[in-house]
Amino acid sequence: MKPSISPNILAAISVIVGNENLFTSKEDAITYSYDGTPLHSQLPEAIVRPSTKEQIGELVKLANKECFSIVPRGAGTGLSGGSIPVPNCIILDMSQWNKILEIDQENLTAWVEPGVITSQLHQAVEEIGLFYPPDPGSMNICTIGGNVAENSGGLRGLKYGVTKNYVMGLEVVLPNGEIIMCGGKSVKDVAGYNLKDFFIGSEGTLGVFTKILLKLIPKPETSKTMLAYFNTQTDAGRTVSAIISKKIIPCTVEFLDNTTIRCVEEFAHIGLPTDINSLLLLEVDGHSVVVEEEAAKVVECCKQNNAIDVKIAQTVEEAIKLKTARRSAFSALARTRPTTILEDITVPRSEIATMLEKISAISKKYNVLIGTFGHAGDGNLHPTCLTDERDHNEISRAEKAYEEIFIEAVKLGGTITGEHGTGLAKKKFLHLVTGYTAIETMRTIKKALDPNNILNPGKVFDI
Amino acid sequence: MKPSISPNILAAISVIVGNENLFTSKEDAITYSYDGTPLHSQLPEAIVRPSTKEQIGELVKLANKECFSIVPRGAGTGLSGGSIPVPNCIILDMSQWNKILEIDQENLTAWVEPGVITSQLHQAVEEIGLFYPPDPGSMNICTIGGNVAENSGGLRGLKYGVTKNYVMGLEVVLPNGEIIMCGGKSVKDVAGYNLKDFFIGSEGTLGVFTKILLKLIPKPETSKTMLAYFNTQTDAGRTVSAIISKKIIPCTVEFLDNTTIRCVEEFAHIGLPTDINSLLLLEVDGHSVVVEEEAAKVVECCKQNNAIDVKIAQTVEEAIKLKTARRSAFSALARTRPTTILEDITVPRSEIATMLEKISAISKKYNVLIGTFGHAGDGNLHPTCLTDERDHNEISRAEKAYEEIFIEAVKLGGTITGEHGTGLAKKKFLHLVTGYTAIETMRTIKKALDPNNILNPGKVFDI
Repeated sequence: MKPSISPNILAAISVIVGNENLFTSKEDAITYSYDGTPLHSQLPEAIVRPSTKEQIGELVKLANKECFSIVPRGAGTGLSGGSIPVPNCIILDMSQWNKILEIDQENLTAWVEPGVITSQLHQAVEEIGLFYPPDPGSMNICTIGGNVAENSGGLRGLKYGVTKNYVMGLEVVLPNGEIIMCGGKSVKDVAGYNLKDFFIGSEGTLGVFTKILLKLIPKPETSKTMLAYFNTQTDAGRTVSAIISKKIIPCTVEFLDNTTIRCVEEFAHIGLPTDINSLLLLEVDGHSVVVEEEAAKVVECCKQNNAIDVKIAQTVEEAIKLKTARRSAFSALARTRPTTILEDITVPRSEIATMLEKISAISKKYNVLIGTFGHAGDGNLHPTCLTDERDHNEISRAEKAYEEIFIEAVKLGGTITGEHGTGLAKKKFLHLVTGYTAIETMRTIKKALDPNNILNPGKVFDI
Repeated sequence: MKPSISPNILAAISVIVGNENLFTSKEDAITYSYDGTPLHSQLPEAIVRPSTKEQIGELVKLANKECFSIVPRGAGTGLSGGSIPVPNCIILDMSQWNKILEIDQENLTAWVEPGVITSQLHQAVEEIGLFYPPDPGSMNICTIGGNVAENSGGLRGLKYGVTKNYVMGLEVVLPNGEIIMCGGKSVKDVAGYNLKDFFIGSEGTLGVFTKILLKLIPKPETSKTMLAYFNTQTDAGRTVSAIISKKIIPCTVEFLDNTTIRCVEEFAHIGLPTDINSLLLLEVDGHSVVVEEEAAKVVECCKQNNAIDVKIAQTVEEAIKLKTARRSAFSALARTRPTTILEDITVPRSEIATMLEKISAISKKYNVLIGTFGHAGDGNLHPTCLTDERDHNEISRAEKAYEEIFIEAVKLGGTITGEHGTGLAKKKFLHLVTGYTAIETMRTIKKALDPNNILNPGKVFDI
């Protein structure tokens, strides 16, 4: 264990960022001791709000010299513990870096600071007919920097991809305190190694992002939102595969099981039938003619796969209400029991139905209540365990259930995390997906770039 | 300089791959001494055709033990010297690994071996209504493995992206001979570092690809191909920006200057007017209704930006003829002088017109004949110097011209290579784009993963 941060080191930090940007009280530390991940927390020694990239460089150099750790943090909405403090660390709070620096309509790009709230970027670009597709569930509070660090997904991933598909450039403070720029406004650039994509999803362990260049696309002309109800999860899962097999790529295909439907309805009161087994929320977007055609085919696909009913949102407001209800799934589930453990497995789309069956069986086997929802079109499911952390036996059963869910997902050709990251919460399962040799490769790179292990140590894997 | 490969080492190689897969004659060596890059060549000590990934692993381990180098090679069509032998190396010829292993219609993926010819994959997937967009100019002879190693682009990059956007999984023999799998059929996967995207474009310096999982998409329903003629390059360049600003993303926007037009016409006889300054070859694709609308808007954009004439291909055959003619640009230019040096700068789309003007001025300044064509929609231009390598003075002027072109491209926010890679040919200019600190970061990773520098040493940067 590294020693704790001494008053002398705090004084040196204060010289770099100014005393008004250094916070060391217990109250401050508690606020930053957790993120969106249950069952993990740790008090930081201090919270630092840097104002310039040069200050961050100096902080990183000081950390190397004095052997303390730095944990970068945006809004702290992460679900794998990526921004939870580690022993002997300062939190580098980037939430004040919240300016949209430029929207370039000729090149369809936006330069943003890492603390920009994702939905604020959506709004800014949509006002001028452009579109930034990644829309994590937490988009109204999470930050672009965190999205890049975790390579976040969202509801539109099926058609539009995830955060990494929209990052064109990154300014990065390296673990040695030097600053580099990777990428830029050229839509094609193969000069040197692809450092940019390697930093994306590195969860704050390889660098601190200080400026991000994002790709924008033209805003889809229109969209159509549908709800399909099913008697069995298998029918719902098969519908997803059938739609893709028909070569239709909806922007959204969300799955909600009965537990989730009931919680959402109780929370949002939008008139969902609470007696159905499951539903799919589907959206197609694009040119109006294409949308009409594709929507008709989607409805047909649902019916061919035994949908009980298919409803089409009649107005934009109704569509937004449905999508907002879906976005509330996590919060709605979280209201029901004290501790909500949200998981994030992904399987090949063809295996959705099988995976849903396995989750149900595992839930029964370990006698834990699991509500499952997620981005079914991506094969990305969020089995959510509703528990009480004071009940150690229940938590232990939940952990066993998750381990089995991870193993089954990987057996089906899937992964333990589709969009939440590995962080603290899943590092012990990482080998299931990647194997030990790949982890050793990651470790070799981390050690080479961050020999003193100062940037977010102990996340993703242990050194 | 490492010592040359001894007979004992050759015997050990022969034990691994079988004597029938080891080639050491001068004639064989000459065949593998060059690739598509002019002015660079080197004889390998031997050529090896491995049959299994385990054999490759053993070869790599032997290379580490005996201190020789390994240069992986597909079809050898590279344009930056990525597959040119280095001193004391064996060529690892992967061209026999040419099987399409699986096309998964439910998940829209294809598993291929690295030696599969790109256009053969196109054909195989298009027959069942699917689409693999990356289409490098050399698609009829180049291999997928090489495409991944160089992160190749092509004519459809503007709308569909480049090779890396379609690689979902990679089986890689690491520089230590161990074998890992990165990625898979899950469309979202953030477990651990993004090794997959880091290997893509690493030009054979970080690993040998033995199996590649590609993403496929539904084949666009239809397309429309247009030719627009211009009196000035500036008008052509501005047309490109204007189309994108109108939020239309054609799949193809190719630029040909007068020199290229004349050479292509002489070569292909398709009736191009040889007296015009430049032309754009444009294609929109997708749903038929959208294609009609977008084509009309593209035509309008061309006219608003002073196009002399806009022609629409009336049949599929005519469209293919036009695109094939464009694909012949490099060959057509290459016929005119003994040595053709093809470059690959990219600038932000908004800077196309400015860059074209700069290339013209530089061509005059150094008195070298430069034909320019390229993927204008991507900002990716191929200024092509028509020279004679026996004329040292001319070659020297060409080199100076290119250096100035690189500097100007970077000044405009661009890069020295959009799709050909850094390889041997451009490594001395890499710092212009990335800066020295980023190169040091790349070097640190290369040294950590390949401490004996055995995989394609001296490519991208020097150790």
